[in-house]
Amino acid sequence: MDQVVKVGLIGLGTVGTGVVKILQNNADIIARRVGRNVVLDKIADLDITTDRGVSVPSEMLTTQVNDILDNPEIDIVVELIGGHEPAKRFILQALSRQKGVVTANKALLADHGEEIFEAAFKTQADLGFEASVGGGIPIIRSLTEGLAGNRLTSIMGIMNGTSNYILTRMTQEGRDFSDILEEASREGYAEADPSLDVEGIDAAHKLVIMVNLAYGTPLPMSAVYTEGIANISTIDMTFARELGFTIKLLGIAKCQDQVIEARVHPTLVPSESPMAQVHGVYNAIHLVGDAVGDIVLYGQGAGSLPTASAVVGDIIDLARNRIQKSFARVPATSFQWGSRQPLAIKPMADIESRYYLRCMVKDEPSALSTISGILGKHGISISSVLQKERKQGQPVPLVIVTHRSIERGIQSALHDMNALPIISEPTVFIRMEDIQ
Amino acid sequence: MDQVVKVGLIGLGTVGTGVVKILQNNADIIARRVGRNVVLDKIADLDITTDRGVSVPSEMLTTQVNDILDNPEIDIVVELIGGHEPAKRFILQALSRQKGVVTANKALLADHGEEIFEAAFKTQADLGFEASVGGGIPIIRSLTEGLAGNRLTSIMGIMNGTSNYILTRMTQEGRDFSDILEEASREGYAEADPSLDVEGIDAAHKLVIMVNLAYGTPLPMSAVYTEGIANISTIDMTFARELGFTIKLLGIAKCQDQVIEARVHPTLVPSESPMAQVHGVYNAIHLVGDAVGDIVLYGQGAGSLPTASAVVGDIIDLARNRIQKSFARVPATSFQWGSRQPLAIKPMADIESRYYLRCMVKDEPSALSTISGILGKHGISISSVLQKERKQGQPVPLVIVTHRSIERGIQSALHDMNALPIISEPTVFIRMEDIQ
Repeated sequence: MDQVVKVGLIGLGTVGTGVVKILQNNADIIARRVGRNVVLDKIADLDITTDRGVSVPSEMLTTQVNDILDNPEIDIVVELIGGHEPAKRFILQALSRQKGVVTANKALLADHGEEIFEAAFKTQADLGFEASVGGGIPIIRSLTEGLAGNRLTSIMGIMNGTSNYILTRMTQEGRDFSDILEEASREGYAEADPSLDVEGIDAAHKLVIMVNLAYGTPLPMSAVYTEGIANISTIDMTFARELGFTIKLLGIAKCQDQVIEARVHPTLVPSESPMAQVHGVYNAIHLVGDAVGDIVLYGQGAGSLPTASAVVGDIIDLARNRIQKSFARVPATSFQWGSRQPLAIKPMADIESRYYLRCMVKDEPSALSTISGILGKHGISISSVLQKERKQGQPVPLVIVTHRSIERGIQSALHDMNALPIISEPTVFIRMEDIQ
Repeated sequence: MDQVVKVGLIGLGTVGTGVVKILQNNADIIARRVGRNVVLDKIADLDITTDRGVSVPSEMLTTQVNDILDNPEIDIVVELIGGHEPAKRFILQALSRQKGVVTANKALLADHGEEIFEAAFKTQADLGFEASVGGGIPIIRSLTEGLAGNRLTSIMGIMNGTSNYILTRMTQEGRDFSDILEEASREGYAEADPSLDVEGIDAAHKLVIMVNLAYGTPLPMSAVYTEGIANISTIDMTFARELGFTIKLLGIAKCQDQVIEARVHPTLVPSESPMAQVHGVYNAIHLVGDAVGDIVLYGQGAGSLPTASAVVGDIIDLARNRIQKSFARVPATSFQWGSRQPLAIKPMADIESRYYLRCMVKDEPSALSTISGILGKHGISISSVLQKERKQGQPVPLVIVTHRSIERGIQSALHDMNALPIISEPTVFIRMEDIQ
C-alpha cells in the first residue's frame, strides 16, 4: 500500500473549500492520527477559475470528473456537488471501483438511499455521510456505533439551521416570517430558493436518514409528514410565550411496537427545555434509547467548516479502514443489509400529541362553551385556555391547549369548529412536544 | 471464525448487570448490526450468590477470572471491577492474549493509562473505554473519530454526576453542602466514600483521558489542578445568581501554542448558558474545534444502563473489528503511538480567568476604595461590584467580579487583601467561564 492516502474532491463550493482548508491546515494532526499522510490529489469542479479563497496548485484542478473516478490511485472520493444527478452517478461509479465515498448529500440519500446503500453493500466499499445530518455534529456515528446497543424510542430535534435562524429572529424581534426571510436571504443565511429549508423538506431528508440508521428500515420521503414555517405568525409566538412555550421546527420520529411515525412541523416546546435554547443556525438532536436514556447533541448544523469537519472525520475513518484493508466494517445502513426490514408507518391521523389551537371567535358569551363542547364531543380534553378581554364587535383570539389527543380527533373537531358562525377564520393549530 | 462473538464479563456490579441486561434484551438488534450473535459466555465475580436482578444460567457464573482470561474462545473481555489492581493485571493479560478489552475504569486509565495504551499498541489488540467518560454520552468516539480532523482549542464540561446533583440541589433548595451530601448518600446518589466525586478527582480522571485523546499527549493526574465543591456555600450561590451566574463543577482543558492547561474547580457560568441548565446527574461536555466550532454533548453521566450503553457500543465496535480481522484500526490513544508528544503544562499561576471574590469587610467607609486599590495595584480591573446595605458593627459581604486576569495577580491581591485589618475572614474566590 502507498504511504499516502489520496483523496479526490468533486465540487469546490462552500463545503468543498472548507474540506480543502482543513486537509491543508490540519494535515499534521490528521497524519498523526491516521498513520499516513492524507493528501488531496485532485479537485473537480465545472468552474475552476473563480477564486474560492483556497490556495491549491493549478494542476490539482480539473473540470473532468473522470480525472478522479478513473484514477486508480485515488482511494477516497468526496462528493460535494449536491442534488440527484450527476451526484448519484459519480457515487455509484466510485463505489463500483472500490473507492471509499464521502458525501454530504442528504437529498440524494433521502430520495435514493436504498440504491446507494445497496451498491455500497454489493461492492463492500465504504460510504461516509456524517456531514449529511447536523453539520459537524457526530450524530450519524452516534446512531451507527456509540448508541448501537440501544433500542431507540425517539429521535427529535432542530435539524435545519436556516429555519431555526428565522424562527429565532421572529421570536426575538417580534417580526413577521416574510420580513425576516428577506433579510436572511440578503445576509446569506438563507438560499436564493429557500423552499427546501423553510418548507421542512431539508429536515425531512435528515429525519429519513436517521430513521433508516436507527431502526434498520428504509423510509420513503413520502412517509414523512412535512409542514414548514411559512404560516407561523407573531401572534402565535406571543401566545406560545405567555403559555411558557417557544415555537421550533422539529423533526420527530418515534418507534413503538415496530411502527414508525415520522414528521416535521412547527412545534411548541417548553421554553425552559434545552431545545428552546437552541438559537440561530445551531441544530440539536435529542435521542432517547432504552439503555442510554436521553442524549442531546448540539452544534452548528451547517456552514463551510462545521460541515467540512464531518467530511474530514469520514475521510479519516475511511483512511483508517483502507490501511487495515477493512471495508464495510460498519455497514452504511448500520444494520447488515439482509437484516433490515421495512417497518409499518403510522398514518398521521393516528399520532398522539398535545395541541395549541387559536380560534378567532366573534364576541359572543357562549363561544367558549360551544367550542369546548365540540372538543369534548371528539374526546379532546382541555389543559389550559387563554382568552384576552374582548373588543366590541371584533373577533378575538381564544387560545386552547389540549391534553394528549389523537390527531384524527383534532382534525374532526377543527372541521366542526371552523364551520361555526362564531368562528371568523380557520383555526390555527400547532402540535406540542413535552420534550425535557 | 465462529459464527458468534463471545464476551467474558469481569465484575457483576451496577454497570455489569446493566451490560447483561442490554446484551440479553437487545440481542436481536445487536446481531442485526454486527452480523453475528454477540453472546455472553462467562461472568466472573467474587460474589456469585447475591441476586443482582438479572437471570443468567448458573454455569455462566464463576469466581475464577481465569475462566475468562484463559479461555481462547472468548473474543472480548469486559473489565468492570474498577480500581487499579487487579483490574490492570486482568486488562494487560487480556490484551497480551489478543482479546479485545472494554473497560469503564477511568481511575485506572488516568493513573496508569500509558502502560495500558502501550500494551494495546504492542499487542495491536483493541481497547474500548467509551464508558470511562460521560456514561452513555459518545464523547470518546467523538474525540477519536468524528472530530478527528479538528484542532481542538478547549474541552469544558460537567463531568461528574454526583457533584452536579449536589450543586443542583444546593442551588434549588438553598441548603448547605453537608446537608445535601448526607441526603444524597442515603438516596444512593453519592457513594459511601464520596471523596472522589466531591473533591473533583473523578472529573480530573475524565479530563486526563480526554486531553490525552484530543491532543495526543500523556497527561499525569498531577498536572491537573483539582478543587472540589465542599467549600461552596449558599451565600455564594445566592450572590452568583444575583449577578446572573450559576456555580458548577467544571473540568476545563485548553490548548494554545502547544501548551496545555487542565483544571477542575467550581466555576461561575452564565445562568442562561446551556451549561447552567445541566441539572442533577446529567453531564455535558462542550468542545471547541477550529473547524467544527462549538459542540455540546449531553446525557446521563453515570448509572447502570447509561454506562452499560457505552460498554455495549464498544463491544459492538470490537466485534465488528474482529469479524473484519481489523485490529487497532483507531489507536486507543486516537493518535498513533509514535506520533504522540508530551506537551508543556501551563502552571496554574499563569492561567487567565475572570474571578468572583467575596470579601467580608468590617463596616468602614474606605473599604471599597482600599480593596479596589489593591486589585488595581496587581493589574486586576473590576467588572462589577455588589455591596449590600451595612449592618452596624457586623462584617458585610463585598462581592467583586473581575475582568479577565492572571491567576498569579489574583493570588497576590488576595494575599494583600486578607492581611487588611478591615477583612474579617479569608476572601472567597471562585473562577468564572464565559462559556456560551
